[in-house]
Amino acid sequence: MDYKTAALAAQLVPATYVQQGLDAVRARHKLLTALLAQRCLPDNGWDDASVETLLQTLSAMDSNNFGGCAGAGEREARVFSTLVARRHFGLAHGVGRSGDVAAVQPKAAGSSLMVQLANALAKDVLRLAGMRAVQAAVVLPVATGMSLMLVLLHLKAAKPAARYVLWPRIDQKSCFKAILAAGLTPLVLANVLVREPRGSCGGYLTTDVAGMVALMEQYGSDSILAVSSTTSCFAPRAYDAVKEIAELCQQRNIAHVINNAYGVQASTCVHQIDMAMRTGRVDAVVQSLDKNFLVPVGGAIVCSASREVVDSVAKLYPGRASATPALDFFITMLQMGKNGYRRLLEERKHLAAYMREKLEMLAAEEGERVLRVSTNEISCAMTLATFCSDVEDRQEKSRRLTMLGAMLFSRGVSGARVVSCLDRKNIAGYDFDSFGAHYDEFPVAYVTFACALGMQRGEVDLLMTKLRKTIRDWRKKQKNASTPCTDDSTQNRQDCRARGASTK
Amino acid sequence: MDYKTAALAAQLVPATYVQQGLDAVRARHKLLTALLAQRCLPDNGWDDASVETLLQTLSAMDSNNFGGCAGAGEREARVFSTLVARRHFGLAHGVGRSGDVAAVQPKAAGSSLMVQLANALAKDVLRLAGMRAVQAAVVLPVATGMSLMLVLLHLKAAKPAARYVLWPRIDQKSCFKAILAAGLTPLVLANVLVREPRGSCGGYLTTDVAGMVALMEQYGSDSILAVSSTTSCFAPRAYDAVKEIAELCQQRNIAHVINNAYGVQASTCVHQIDMAMRTGRVDAVVQSLDKNFLVPVGGAIVCSASREVVDSVAKLYPGRASATPALDFFITMLQMGKNGYRRLLEERKHLAAYMREKLEMLAAEEGERVLRVSTNEISCAMTLATFCSDVEDRQEKSRRLTMLGAMLFSRGVSGARVVSCLDRKNIAGYDFDSFGAHYDEFPVAYVTFACALGMQRGEVDLLMTKLRKTIRDWRKKQKNASTPCTDDSTQNRQDCRARGASTK
Amino acid sequence: MDYKTAALAAQLVPATYVQQGLDAVRARHKLLTALLAQRCLPDNGWDDASVETLLQTLSAMDSNNFGGCAGAGEREARVFSTLVARRHFGLAHGVGRSGDVAAVQPKAAGSSLMVQLANALAKDVLRLAGMRAVQAAVVLPVATGMSLMLVLLHLKAAKPAARYVLWPRIDQKSCFKAILAAGLTPLVLANVLVREPRGSCGGYLTTDVAGMVALMEQYGSDSILAVSSTTSCFAPRAYDAVKEIAELCQQRNIAHVINNAYGVQASTCVHQIDMAMRTGRVDAVVQSLDKNFLVPVGGAIVCSASREVVDSVAKLYPGRASATPALDFFITMLQMGKNGYRRLLEERKHLAAYMREKLEMLAAEEGERVLRVSTNEISCAMTLATFCSDVEDRQEKSRRLTMLGAMLFSRGVSGARVVSCLDRKNIAGYDFDSFGAHYDEFPVAYVTFACALGMQRGEVDLLMTKLRKTIRDWRKKQKNASTPCTDDSTQNRQDCRARGASTK
Amino acid sequence: MDYKTAALAAQLVPATYVQQGLDAVRARHKLLTALLAQRCLPDNGWDDASVETLLQTLSAMDSNNFGGCAGAGEREARVFSTLVARRHFGLAHGVGRSGDVAAVQPKAAGSSLMVQLANALAKDVLRLAGMRAVQAAVVLPVATGMSLMLVLLHLKAAKPAARYVLWPRIDQKSCFKAILAAGLTPLVLANVLVREPRGSCGGYLTTDVAGMVALMEQYGSDSILAVSSTTSCFAPRAYDAVKEIAELCQQRNIAHVINNAYGVQASTCVHQIDMAMRTGRVDAVVQSLDKNFLVPVGGAIVCSASREVVDSVAKLYPGRASATPALDFFITMLQMGKNGYRRLLEERKHLAAYMREKLEMLAAEEGERVLRVSTNEISCAMTLATFCSDVEDRQEKSRRLTMLGAMLFSRGVSGARVVSCLDRKNIAGYDFDSFGAHYDEFPVAYVTFACALGMQRGEVDLLMTKLRKTIRDWRKKQKNASTPCTDDSTQNRQDCRARGASTK
Repeated sequence: MDYKTAALAAQLVPATYVQQGLDAVRARHKLLTALLAQRCLPDNGWDDASVETLLQTLSAMDSNNFGGCAGAGEREARVFSTLVARRHFGLAHGVGRSGDVAAVQPKAAGSSLMVQLANALAKDVLRLAGMRAVQAAVVLPVATGMSLMLVLLHLKAAKPAARYVLWPRIDQKSCFKAILAAGLTPLVLANVLVREPRGSCGGYLTTDVAGMVALMEQYGSDSILAVSSTTSCFAPRAYDAVKEIAELCQQRNIAHVINNAYGVQASTCVHQIDMAMRTGRVDAVVQSLDKNFLVPVGGAIVCSASREVVDSVAKLYPGRASATPALDFFITMLQMGKNGYRRLLEERKHLAAYMREKLEMLAAEEGERVLRVSTNEISCAMTLATFCSDVEDRQEKSRRLTMLGAMLFSRGVSGARVVSCLDRKNIAGYDFDSFGAHYDEFPVAYVTFACALGMQRGEVDLLMTKLRKTIRDWRKKQKNASTPCTDDSTQNRQDCRARGASTK
Repeated sequence: MDYKTAALAAQLVPATYVQQGLDAVRARHKLLTALLAQRCLPDNGWDDASVETLLQTLSAMDSNNFGGCAGAGEREARVFSTLVARRHFGLAHGVGRSGDVAAVQPKAAGSSLMVQLANALAKDVLRLAGMRAVQAAVVLPVATGMSLMLVLLHLKAAKPAARYVLWPRIDQKSCFKAILAAGLTPLVLANVLVREPRGSCGGYLTTDVAGMVALMEQYGSDSILAVSSTTSCFAPRAYDAVKEIAELCQQRNIAHVINNAYGVQASTCVHQIDMAMRTGRVDAVVQSLDKNFLVPVGGAIVCSASREVVDSVAKLYPGRASATPALDFFITMLQMGKNGYRRLLEERKHLAAYMREKLEMLAAEEGERVLRVSTNEISCAMTLATFCSDVEDRQEKSRRLTMLGAMLFSRGVSGARVVSCLDRKNIAGYDFDSFGAHYDEFPVAYVTFACALGMQRGEVDLLMTKLRKTIRDWRKKQKNASTPCTDDSTQNRQDCRARGASTK
Repeated sequence: MDYKTAALAAQLVPATYVQQGLDAVRARHKLLTALLAQRCLPDNGWDDASVETLLQTLSAMDSNNFGGCAGAGEREARVFSTLVARRHFGLAHGVGRSGDVAAVQPKAAGSSLMVQLANALAKDVLRLAGMRAVQAAVVLPVATGMSLMLVLLHLKAAKPAARYVLWPRIDQKSCFKAILAAGLTPLVLANVLVREPRGSCGGYLTTDVAGMVALMEQYGSDSILAVSSTTSCFAPRAYDAVKEIAELCQQRNIAHVINNAYGVQASTCVHQIDMAMRTGRVDAVVQSLDKNFLVPVGGAIVCSASREVVDSVAKLYPGRASATPALDFFITMLQMGKNGYRRLLEERKHLAAYMREKLEMLAAEEGERVLRVSTNEISCAMTLATFCSDVEDRQEKSRRLTMLGAMLFSRGVSGARVVSCLDRKNIAGYDFDSFGAHYDEFPVAYVTFACALGMQRGEVDLLMTKLRKTIRDWRKKQKNASTPCTDDSTQNRQDCRARGASTK
Repeated sequence: MDYKTAALAAQLVPATYVQQGLDAVRARHKLLTALLAQRCLPDNGWDDASVETLLQTLSAMDSNNFGGCAGAGEREARVFSTLVARRHFGLAHGVGRSGDVAAVQPKAAGSSLMVQLANALAKDVLRLAGMRAVQAAVVLPVATGMSLMLVLLHLKAAKPAARYVLWPRIDQKSCFKAILAAGLTPLVLANVLVREPRGSCGGYLTTDVAGMVALMEQYGSDSILAVSSTTSCFAPRAYDAVKEIAELCQQRNIAHVINNAYGVQASTCVHQIDMAMRTGRVDAVVQSLDKNFLVPVGGAIVCSASREVVDSVAKLYPGRASATPALDFFITMLQMGKNGYRRLLEERKHLAAYMREKLEMLAAEEGERVLRVSTNEISCAMTLATFCSDVEDRQEKSRRLTMLGAMLFSRGVSGARVVSCLDRKNIAGYDFDSFGAHYDEFPVAYVTFACALGMQRGEVDLLMTKLRKTIRDWRKKQKNASTPCTDDSTQNRQDCRARGASTK
């Protein structure tokens, strides 16, 4: 509303009331000006109405929302369903142009502005989290796996003769498949088991830096395209030694990509990456949008200390893409604000300590231990040494441990993973022993739990209650040899769901 | 509402009214049963409330919407922003699993069901449009260019030694970049100009089948991975001779991928692809979601006469992805229904004839012609032979013709392309003369217009009015040599936008 | 977006694109300026986004949406549920102040502006429909019955000694109860039956003007507060002779209130009211929002040739009220526009003629007639002379005719009324013979149908099909004496509902 | 989803996942069953999706959302604007029938069910808050003032000869106007000032029970229709002595209506009403929806210990009405739940104590006092004895004190009332001295603040900061005699609004 409008309005409603109202309208407008000027997260999150007002303004700037125009192209962003149009706030042109997923679209000034801002906010939030070395970031409209593949394809274009990717083992399929999908050949580097001092059966897994040097020597820098290291992983695997790897890569002229899928939420993790970027070679770091920033699955941020790498990856992307991941991230950053994100990081940190404490109490009751993995702030693992300790048959033992996982899931514990260390898996022709354990012969079965961003204290308490009860039920089944080892958890499921809709 | 609920309700409202109301609730439920049983488009489109009810049911089936559960994984689909959660109807787990973008997620039964249904509807709608040979289809969460790249990567995995992709020239960047991004080498095949009989300067462009045979001979089947042909293109380029190419590919054991970006809406196009699939080799056909089905940019359908190809492409995709393209498509198919889609196809066909007729009238007035391209049902081109016919300087001529395009755009005609046939472009090291013309020395400049799905008759009329006026203004500027050749179209823009919001 | 913002945006997206986008944003803003300046319906309806943008602006102007403020009153428009807040676009202060429902609220400049505009649009749309004599109008947050009561209370305050309201009989409860609720005593004036010329059993009902004069003489002007006449009614009752009544009222100093519940949609009706306002006394005319303007039930417009009456009624209203009726009306007027409303009126007129034509065909088949009621453009009545013509027992006859109505309802014909002319009803101590027929001894049973605003041609066709089939089924049941006279219409209901959700 | 659907779904997604999903769907359905069976607030609030699912089910049960039907009535609940339809969840028939606002509509089983449940929840929540004597309640679609008028009209119908309403003075217009609008004559009973013991200038106001007896004697039971007492009011007025009044009314056969506009949130208030209902005569208690239950303005609850009174008031209402107040209340009660409402009540209680404590500190600083009003839990008043103590001229003094109020408002303190005790007001012919003070010659000026339901601790702190600063600024202005006594608070307003949108 400008002064002319205000004067007209004042014919209907006293000018002082109009004036007070317009001050509020202008305050909202100033939020936008500040966003455009500073291109960083606002200190405090915006409310819904402010976000929606901005989105409607951006939407009005896209040609498909103009009136009085004739669309004579093959792509005019027409949308059939009102439901669909509404959920996209009328933004239908997607992101990017045929040549570059970060490029601006002439027909879509509003969408383009949103994308540019989203990329700026991505850089800002990563730096806020502690990756101060980041100089450029792009929100890709594909998730972590595809983003890793795109980064590898970009690297390959620059070094076409190299065909190997050196990969410290991490038992998670998509990063492994990203290498294969890019038409490259993985060199699997086994992890090192660091046993716990007191002679117990546990320990943690870390990068075999010496082994990596050996592999580099063996294959040679010319044929090794990159090292694909991983920070975010389940205990007892630790973050990869990214600083050491970065230094090796720099010395030997090998590219280095860090899969930091959900590591932005962990301060030590972020710090190690920052160090690696400063002191060695890190071409790109890839992080998932959903896990780090609480949006639906679908996007990732690729960042780098070099704007050139980020731009090249964006330029490699053939054609346009969905604006949804960028838009979800954009909205969320505006609504979270710096203070909101800091608070979430803080809460997660305290809750992770609380979870570990509670789990240690439970482990003590059961005669088990929580494995000590200093550089894994998100995931913790409790041994299952006393579970099926008397069962000789590997297959039967695996079946029974799997049952424990299934029981937890059907009782409403999602995301817990029982690792029997007994399963073998073949992925695209590559064999992995003890798949899930990141290591061929991990000495003990265990179950892992993560304390990820957004988890609530009530969930940790509920987890402990359910875990305790499930273990008791499972042990009971084991004793009773005649009971068929299945879990009729319908009742439990219903208990869980009965409180289902009451989560406000 | 079941019988118990009905009985309770009947204590508050007379049973006959409750009964009549419940019949309606059940009718809605039957729509879902029919959808699950038949897995094809409903005859008539669903209304908003029916779609939303279904989506809420599906959403309730995803674990992130359960209550009373503890999320102990690193990915629990938590969503920070209510605005974001609402626009996804609470579906936050995305699609796919780490191994396969079409795979089912244990934590997300509802999302998974939606994806399976979307894929079934994709197959159904393609067959409905005339591609009866299609046996399998998958909605990919990436647009056409990336989908082509994934198909090529899939083919390459099976024939790693082959590095060439034979590509009949089509001046559109993303399909070309898809080949490069896949790490492959394009072999560009020039088109053939078929001149119009009456000795005029026009003509149309078609596939040089003999030239293709020669290239195949020259490089050999072992080194050629695939032919990447194109059906959807701007006049005066015709659809590629996909039937002949498919036969050549079958004979010589070369893969064949058809880029059918926006061809589903054109019956002859679809018919030729169907023939090619039946009589020759077509590994996969890729079509854009947005242009053919009126959804926001972001997805594509890869289909094939072989389920295996489709499954392999889905399995190649590393990791999860956004559910948005599948969800937009799913909603739109339910709301369109068979009858709705047929009606849209029919309307487009008639409107394209109407547009050509009107354009021929205008061309006659201007001393120009509409180029006759029998196998291009969407796009038509009007020559610009009399425009700048007296300007010798290529650069100046190009500049002036570009101005015509800019004037059209700023007056609210989007999507019209002025092709001067004078521009040279380099894409990733490859030079293209007369870029935009699909041909090195096309004999005449022209402007193209598309009549794509969803265009309205009013838009065609508006197009003609604006085109006529813009040409007049442009010619006036040319005459007046002293006038600097710029377009102060602010006024026009405002005229256009003033009616902007009144489009109901 | 102002120039500063545009300049900032141009650092991210080329200035020409930003400029084109901002033209569109400004076009939307101009709609608001025009609305405030002209205070009448826009020529063309606004699209959703334009309306929502305006509502967000208005909402931002209300104090409950300010930030950084402290609400220290007992009423601060806090809203607990986000669902509720969203559906009100954040407007929570309602309308009016304790003294006046049309007054402006200091805390709610936005809501107040909306209300003022809604009242202006109400006046404009009534004049557009043909009530040119209207000088003031207010959207009341109560429906027709309550609005009539408020008008009567207002009149009574000015003439406290008068306790009678002269009421030409109309068999519809709420206007009768409005008189009683106001603490007044109705004087019921029977209608006159004008028989059809050709000696048939039908005819139509009209105002007994002579009888009205007689009653006025009998009770005297001092004790008669007002005449409450009715225009909108079911055939065979005609509109009241409002012009003659208005003249009588003027001569005798008696107030005159017209219940024009759904008459705005009928041009003759509107014309007669306009004449009455010009040539006689009409204190106020009350019309329903839902039936005339296609919004949910809840509001009414009170209009008058005198601003004073309208203001007084608004001032009588004690306390605040829901903004919903005004808001629904406001949104609808903006989205309909003048052209939209004119088109709806036109379509209804044609459709009513079509319905009458089809009904006459059906009546001829059944040996019945459609009653000729020249001044009822919305409703028509088909005689049921041959139905139960052989049944002597009144109660049984009534029961059987009622059954016909129930069968129509359960088969998906809503709103049809079977009037047996055999039912007696007592309302608050007043007896009405042949209730529903507006007349004690109407000579023939009949069924009425209305063709109201927004009805579709397909509905008329469906009505005829269902009516024909239902009559056939009903007659069959009558013949078969042994069949118990009930209607097991479950199957029919399901047939009807099965197509229920497919109405797009 | 029933078993057939589940079986079909299991062909697309593994049966165990489908099963787990369906358990969640069923849990949501059970919420509805429990609601219908128990008809009281759920213990825990429902989430948005559960509420929306229920509303969609109810909406599907209304005939305007059926498909395949023909609407042949004059009122078919057609809605033009999609925006409007959406905001009503497709519920368009309103509430009530022509005869009774609580009646069930045959065409609208869903809406009717919602209304019945809303009324049940109204009864439940009042009892939960402490009004255990309540036996029936109805949610009226009009706010407090109109509801009071309807109750009075109902009482009048039963005792038509009585024309007086005995009204202990409360300076709030709508309840006074309700008496007048009902055509009744108020007998104003002055309050009694109970001075504070220590001889200070303050005190509190309470009901003059002896005076009431005198008036009853003077006018006689036959001519007094009712006493209209008030509980919710601003300090220093205390709640009326409702118990004593109820006893008097019972003895003398005079009706008694309690205006409890926003008293449900205050436990002592509710307790006194409960006592009054048990031991004396209370025909009806009226409470506002917005202030007690945090919904937008528009509705009220009329409750009674007698179902008959409630039913009669509902039956008096002529015609249909908006469903919005009932719907907002219904949604809010479901989302709040018993625990949510209890928590809000608890928080308000603590916050009121906190506010009083802070205000007493500030008062001490300023040489003022907070008046002690034992039976007013919501509002508190701080004297302004030292403000303008040297100004003799009443008009100038009033103007200056009004300025203090205006300054507070423009600085973002809404709802604070400065009462100079110097203003005289005429309402519909009745003169009130010291209007706003509830008393002709209250000994000291003061300012009131309320701590109403939903207020936040941050708001109290902000209030104190702003109050302190505003008083300082105001005093500065007074000293500087040459400064014109206006408040250029633009800067302050902007300060306030600048943080406006950042309230998440």
